[in-house]
Amino acid sequence: MTSSSSSRPGEFELIAQLFAPLATDPGAYGLRDDVALLAPPAGQDLVLKTDAIVEGVHFFAADPADLVAQKALRVNVSDLAAKGATPTGYLLSLSIPQQTSMPWLTAFAEGLARDQKAWGISLLGGDTTATPGPVTISISMIGTVPRGEAIRRAGARPGDLVFVTGTIGDAGGGLEILRGGGAQLSDDARTFLISSYRCPSPSPEFGARLRGIASASLDVSDGLMADLGHVAEVSDVRIVVDSAQVPLSEALEKLWGKGVVQRAVVAGDDYQIAFTAPQSSRNAIFAAARDCGVRVSEIGRVEQGSGTGLLDRAGNLISLSEAGYTHF
Amino acid sequence: MTSSSSSRPGEFELIAQLFAPLATDPGAYGLRDDVALLAPPAGQDLVLKTDAIVEGVHFFAADPADLVAQKALRVNVSDLAAKGATPTGYLLSLSIPQQTSMPWLTAFAEGLARDQKAWGISLLGGDTTATPGPVTISISMIGTVPRGEAIRRAGARPGDLVFVTGTIGDAGGGLEILRGGGAQLSDDARTFLISSYRCPSPSPEFGARLRGIASASLDVSDGLMADLGHVAEVSDVRIVVDSAQVPLSEALEKLWGKGVVQRAVVAGDDYQIAFTAPQSSRNAIFAAARDCGVRVSEIGRVEQGSGTGLLDRAGNLISLSEAGYTHF
Repeated sequence: MTSSSSSRPGEFELIAQLFAPLATDPGAYGLRDDVALLAPPAGQDLVLKTDAIVEGVHFFAADPADLVAQKALRVNVSDLAAKGATPTGYLLSLSIPQQTSMPWLTAFAEGLARDQKAWGISLLGGDTTATPGPVTISISMIGTVPRGEAIRRAGARPGDLVFVTGTIGDAGGGLEILRGGGAQLSDDARTFLISSYRCPSPSPEFGARLRGIASASLDVSDGLMADLGHVAEVSDVRIVVDSAQVPLSEALEKLWGKGVVQRAVVAGDDYQIAFTAPQSSRNAIFAAARDCGVRVSEIGRVEQGSGTGLLDRAGNLISLSEAGYTHF
Repeated sequence: MTSSSSSRPGEFELIAQLFAPLATDPGAYGLRDDVALLAPPAGQDLVLKTDAIVEGVHFFAADPADLVAQKALRVNVSDLAAKGATPTGYLLSLSIPQQTSMPWLTAFAEGLARDQKAWGISLLGGDTTATPGPVTISISMIGTVPRGEAIRRAGARPGDLVFVTGTIGDAGGGLEILRGGGAQLSDDARTFLISSYRCPSPSPEFGARLRGIASASLDVSDGLMADLGHVAEVSDVRIVVDSAQVPLSEALEKLWGKGVVQRAVVAGDDYQIAFTAPQSSRNAIFAAARDCGVRVSEIGRVEQGSGTGLLDRAGNLISLSEAGYTHF
C-alpha cells in the first residue's frame, strides 16, 4: 500500500507545504503531533458537526478546487450558524486518487485559507489518504456557543412566525445548469445559479444574532419543506409556508418558470437558515439582518398539529412531488 | 442526486435504526439536531484527532463489517492513547456505494457499539453520503486529558530509554496473508496475523498511566522506525533501536523468517505506542503494563544527534530499504 505519485510530493511533504501553514491555532502544533489540544473556553458549550462532500455526488470533478474546499467548510459552518454558534476550527480528512494534481491541491488549500481568514478559524488536524475512488472530503467543524444558548430544532411554538435567509432553490438550479440545462438563461443568471451550487454563503454572524430570539432553527440542506418538517417533528407542531412568500431569485424564476416554488422548496443544498420566532421578535430579526447584510423573509407560521404544508394564495395546500433531498 | 436503494432503507431510516441508538451522550440529541453540544469538563484539555479508512486501501471489501467499524474507531483511539488521553466520543462520516447492504451496515453498527461499550464512548454526530467509489469511513475522535498533561512527540531527551507496546509488524504480516501469502503457516498463526491487520488493540488505559512518566510518545502507524523518526525530529534528538529487542510474534517470525526485524520495523498499521522515558521510570512503566495487561519492551535509547538507527547485535547500523509507510 506504499506508493507515490510522480506528479506531486509525498504525504509528509504535502502536509508540510500545503496544510501545516493552515494550522494557525497553537494547539494544532503545526500538524507535527498526533492530535490537536484545545483548552475549552470558560462559559461556552462546544459545538461539533461533521459533513462530507464527494466528487460526483456533491461537487463535479471540473469544479474549481478552491470552491470545492470552501463548500466542504461551508456546509459545516452552515450548521453551526443555524445554531447560533461561532466556528473556531476544523479537522480535515482528505481522500484523493493518484491523479489528483499538485495544482488542484494547491488551489484547494488556497480555498481553505480564504475561508479561514474570513471566519478566523484554524485547521486543527487532518488526515490524507489514498483512494481508488472519487475525491472525498470530510470536515469536522468545532465551534462554541455561550453555555445553554444554542438554538435547537426543538422549540418552535404555535403562534411563532417562520423565516428563512437568502433565496431558496438556487443551488438546485445551478446543479441543473451544470448538468446541461438552462441554455435560455443569460450568462449572469447562469453564473449566479452555478455559484450558489458550488459555494454556499452561510452567515454565522447572523446566526449568532438569533440567540435569544429564534425559538427553533436549522440549516436548509435537504430542502426547505423537508427541513421545516424536521423542526415540526421535534418541536411537535405544524408548520405552514405561504408559497407566495418563499424568496426566489430572478434567475431561478427564469430557469424554472411556472411551478418554480414547488421545485425550489424541495431542492437541496441551499445552506440557508430557516428559523421560527415569536411575532414580538420580528423587528429585532430584520434589524439583525440589516446589520449582517443578510436577506431575511417571513414565509409562514407555526400552528398546533404536525407536519408541514405549502399554501397557495387562496390558502389551499399545494402537493409536493418529493419529500426532499436524501443523500442516497 | 436523490435516489434510493431497494436493498436498504433511506438515509433517515438508516440513521434512526442503526446510528441513533449509538448516540448515548445527551449532547448528541439522538442525532435529531444539526450538531452535538458538549459542556467541556473543567480542568481538562480537549484532544481532537481525525483518521479515515478506505476500502481497498486500509481494509478489504471482504473484511467483516464489525471489524471494519472497530478499526475505524481504533486507529483514532490509538492516537489518543499515545497522548495519555481518554476518548469520550466521536463523529462518524460514512460514504457508501449503492451496493452496500443492510446486513453489512447492521454489522458495522454492531462493531461500533461493541467498542463504545468497551471504552464508554458515544457517537456524537454523523453524516452518511452516497459515493460512486469505495466505502470510506472518517472518524473524528474527541477525548480529554488533564490540563497540560498530554504526552507530546517533542520531549525525548538524551539518556532516555525507548519502549514500545505489543509486537511489531503483525499487521503488515496479516496484510501479506490477505494478499495470498503465508500458505506455510498454521491456521492459528494466519488468524493471529490477519486479526492484527483487521483490528488493532490500543490501550488508552495504559496510555493514561504514561502521563507524567513518558517524555515523548506517539502511536506506531507509519512503521516503528519512521514514527520514532518523527519523535527524533521534533525532539531534536537521535533514537537508536536494538534490533534484537524489537518485540516480534512467533507467527511473524515464521512468516518472514530471516530479515523479519528489518521488515517489521518498516511495516505500518501497528497501532502500538512507542515512547521514551527516563531510566528512573523503568519500574513504573513495567508495573503499569502489568496492571493494564499490556506487553511492553525496552528497545533502545535516546542520544544526542538526529535521525534514527537500527543496530545489529554488534552495534552496527542495519540499513533499511524503506523509510516507512506513507499513505500514497
